[in-house]
Amino acid sequence: MAERAVSLLSGGLDSTTATCWALRQGLEVTALSVDYRQRQRVELDRARAVAARLGVPHRVVRLDLAAIGGSALTDAALEVPKDRPEADLARDVPVTYVPARNTVLLALALGLAEVTGASKLVIGANAVDYSGYPDCRPAFLRAFEAVAAAGTRAGAEQGVRFEVLAPLLDLTKAGIVRLAREVGAPLELTWTCYDPQPGERACGRCDACQLRLKGFREAGERDPVPYAGADP
Amino acid sequence: MAERAVSLLSGGLDSTTATCWALRQGLEVTALSVDYRQRQRVELDRARAVAARLGVPHRVVRLDLAAIGGSALTDAALEVPKDRPEADLARDVPVTYVPARNTVLLALALGLAEVTGASKLVIGANAVDYSGYPDCRPAFLRAFEAVAAAGTRAGAEQGVRFEVLAPLLDLTKAGIVRLAREVGAPLELTWTCYDPQPGERACGRCDACQLRLKGFREAGERDPVPYAGADP
Repeated sequence: MAERAVSLLSGGLDSTTATCWALRQGLEVTALSVDYRQRQRVELDRARAVAARLGVPHRVVRLDLAAIGGSALTDAALEVPKDRPEADLARDVPVTYVPARNTVLLALALGLAEVTGASKLVIGANAVDYSGYPDCRPAFLRAFEAVAAAGTRAGAEQGVRFEVLAPLLDLTKAGIVRLAREVGAPLELTWTCYDPQPGERACGRCDACQLRLKGFREAGERDPVPYAGADP
Repeated sequence: MAERAVSLLSGGLDSTTATCWALRQGLEVTALSVDYRQRQRVELDRARAVAARLGVPHRVVRLDLAAIGGSALTDAALEVPKDRPEADLARDVPVTYVPARNTVLLALALGLAEVTGASKLVIGANAVDYSGYPDCRPAFLRAFEAVAAAGTRAGAEQGVRFEVLAPLLDLTKAGIVRLAREVGAPLELTWTCYDPQPGERACGRCDACQLRLKGFREAGERDPVPYAGADP
């Protein structure tokens, strides 16, 4: 019987690629999206479309972080930065950082894993382009495995060994684009932009768009999603 | 300057006592409640009342776990067990178990800690009467501290040492009632029952009521909250 996994699926390039990778590993995947009231609602629609395309069950947990705040992704009062120099993208914890995001996401994935009998948690975390996020580093992921081992009935009492699988962790964005092609990720359905433009076009200028476009450029691939303004 | 803490406050006896304990320790407390659409909405109202009485800032994060399910506390299709023998209460993971609950709660507390500059996370976890919950054990709490250390900017880059404080961990329910008196917890505002009866009366028969009443009995104290039916 295939081992079961819960794969965190935001509808972006990274999580879609990680989810497709998990399927190729032969895992029985349930996709989990967290609707944390992102300003870009399109992301969640894309997660649904990706899950449907891949034919995997999809759960959506609603989490309203507005009471916590601290991120331009959830707090409408903060502005999404545009056209930042590339060096800044890798160095800073971006204003779009959601406090303790991956801890929260993995905690919810762990909850669903308990219910579905899964022992693998799949996350599109990446330590290269997002080095500014402490919760995208191997030390964090290993620490979370210890939490899963100690904090669940399966881990603490039934000897299940939980694993956090982060297949993109050490890949460059170009490497992620290449892996996406290899595992047949439906790139045309993915959404990355922090600041959607009319007609569901990406802005091409926010941090996330810049990193994505750089990845496609360096991989020698064309990004199939439409961008606002001149074709970048 | 006082050290800052985020205290998880459900409005129940345990979390209210833990929060009052944290205040007595001289911590600058922000209370955090998670509205995970419990069937007993009264609990959240009590959390608000307790925070107001204590004069601490209070944040409420909404989390809809219905898509995950697996608990009678969030899933209306499962029945809250009544009049279970005392031995069962301590042995089983109850049907009212919320998957990965304390992991999720601590993750959200960690997010708020990042935003408020807190390094202490206070939780009313208890390993005695709730021994059936793996995420109420010391090994789990220590593992979560490691996640906080690795997964936050403060922990990973600024040398902040996160601590999970669980002052009730090794107390019996009677010990919790005594501590509640010591730290001046507003017991009359707290809510414990899984199955509220008309007029905001506790049922007195669900697992949670049984444990609470036993605690008051053994501490030789009178429970100030009203119960349905004969005075227990």
